[in-house]
Amino acid sequence: MPKARVRIHVENNAETEALRFTPAHLERILAAHPGLRERLAVTINDDPDRTDGQSDAEILFAVRKPKSLADAKELRWLQSTSAGVEALLPLMLPGAVLTNASGVHREKGGEFILAAVLMLNYAIPRFAGDKQHRRWAPRFESTVAGKRAMLLGVGAIGGEGARLLRLVGATTIGVTRTGGRREHVDRSVTFAAIDEFLPQTDFLVSSLPLTRETEGMIDRRRLDLLPRHAGVAIVGRAKVFDCDALLDKLADESLGGAVLDVFPEEPLPPQSRFWTAPNLVITPHCSVDDHAVYMDRCVALFSDNLGRYLDGAPLRNVVDPERGY
Amino acid sequence: MPKARVRIHVENNAETEALRFTPAHLERILAAHPGLRERLAVTINDDPDRTDGQSDAEILFAVRKPKSLADAKELRWLQSTSAGVEALLPLMLPGAVLTNASGVHREKGGEFILAAVLMLNYAIPRFAGDKQHRRWAPRFESTVAGKRAMLLGVGAIGGEGARLLRLVGATTIGVTRTGGRREHVDRSVTFAAIDEFLPQTDFLVSSLPLTRETEGMIDRRRLDLLPRHAGVAIVGRAKVFDCDALLDKLADESLGGAVLDVFPEEPLPPQSRFWTAPNLVITPHCSVDDHAVYMDRCVALFSDNLGRYLDGAPLRNVVDPERGY
Repeated sequence: MPKARVRIHVENNAETEALRFTPAHLERILAAHPGLRERLAVTINDDPDRTDGQSDAEILFAVRKPKSLADAKELRWLQSTSAGVEALLPLMLPGAVLTNASGVHREKGGEFILAAVLMLNYAIPRFAGDKQHRRWAPRFESTVAGKRAMLLGVGAIGGEGARLLRLVGATTIGVTRTGGRREHVDRSVTFAAIDEFLPQTDFLVSSLPLTRETEGMIDRRRLDLLPRHAGVAIVGRAKVFDCDALLDKLADESLGGAVLDVFPEEPLPPQSRFWTAPNLVITPHCSVDDHAVYMDRCVALFSDNLGRYLDGAPLRNVVDPERGY
Repeated sequence: MPKARVRIHVENNAETEALRFTPAHLERILAAHPGLRERLAVTINDDPDRTDGQSDAEILFAVRKPKSLADAKELRWLQSTSAGVEALLPLMLPGAVLTNASGVHREKGGEFILAAVLMLNYAIPRFAGDKQHRRWAPRFESTVAGKRAMLLGVGAIGGEGARLLRLVGATTIGVTRTGGRREHVDRSVTFAAIDEFLPQTDFLVSSLPLTRETEGMIDRRRLDLLPRHAGVAIVGRAKVFDCDALLDKLADESLGGAVLDVFPEEPLPPQSRFWTAPNLVITPHCSVDDHAVYMDRCVALFSDNLGRYLDGAPLRNVVDPERGY
């Protein structure tokens, strides 16, 4: 049950206007929870190097990743605005619940998966390089309709991607930890079962978070199981893949192409192999983030969870520290 | 009515295996028209420099553009395997009917329009250049869902593109000569009425053929009516646009980007401005051609029209020489 006084601390992102927590956001939260106005104490910290404002907080709304949570001794619940929380989990103190922002990227993330698959099918990674070399070399491939996409991860983003891929006529295989039946996929399989299906995969799309289980899951051996024409798209976390193996296979054309939104190190350093890799489209970690709706959705999620918290009801998007998402 | 003897001449494409007219194709035609076997005389010419085989032909199946039709004095009907026939029309002798291959590109052409719009929305033309310059500069745009696409031409390709764009939630304006109501578009307008709608257009997509009416239709003034963020995709004929103006606008960033499959001169010469233009994805005139199905569909169309011809029934895809398509 909530205490009489509700102390919320906001670790704010003041650098990017579209991601800043504003008084208007606070008003929206208060309008949704009228009884809260008298007993709420809010502190907002814009300085990423400071953490002292956390010491009294019962609830923390993390619009950016806090430098540390060591001072947050009273913390019972942290709402992140990120879907992937592998960097936050190690900061959490025992007894505090972490909720992520899974779902806020659904529409754009799903649409980008469709875009990535279409780009792979239409050899856009190759044609981008051909332009650079003034090379006119047409390829008369078939449509995505009738081809097979394997979706690693069928959460909000992967599920929406699967829905759109099926709308254009692709067949979808959904890969999850449990292999449980999901909407919008023609077949559901577990992580362990993918080797059998990789050789029939035209497009391998990952929206997986980085966890103990997923790190390095798509290693060189598994990449080698894909047909030569296959394309790879990653919108989740890059370290799910052996990226060196991926780059090797792009270089020797034992893979058709790749569309990568995420990388082991971001921003990509100037000397990175990714910049010069052939048959690769790079989008700089922005494919699932829609700044026009992002903060509104995160604030709505936080406000909804705040109501649940005050009522003592189960929160949405609770992260299981063992699973890592 | 057909004469007792049916003389068909095939101007063949022997250079590209996927586009070659073969005995198997002929057998398929004969199987569909059993009565034809005894009275058919077929000649097949693989040499693009020769035209003498045309002199007796009543029917010509043009798998590639013939060098000339001056010898085809007996010709009554020519079936082209091309959808755009602006290069064939001037060769036609009076009295012969020309039918085009409109429809064979529907699925791939429509899917590529969806791909092009998604690429424009997700700044792929820009990110391709950023990769070349090792520049990490994310853009957090909204989805295609909710945005507006203007489709210049709503035939087989444009209509299928409109259908798919609506599936992902875009609004579509279809532009045709007559402005008549078409399937899959939210609004139909005439060529003459587009100026009013260009300022609200996020994506301008052309599948228009080259005709007297369409040549130069999208001139500099009309390109200037588009918003700065707008993207342009061309899968029909390039000369519908003032391409110099288009390249100028890409260079000074008064246009968001372009995806071009067609060009005023093809293959693009090495010194062409297109190769070095910023914010441009080049696909080398292959976006609508699916070689896995192309010849089968063209032969099926020819066979169907042949049946109509033998029955004295109206042919499909008759080109109006005045309209030019």
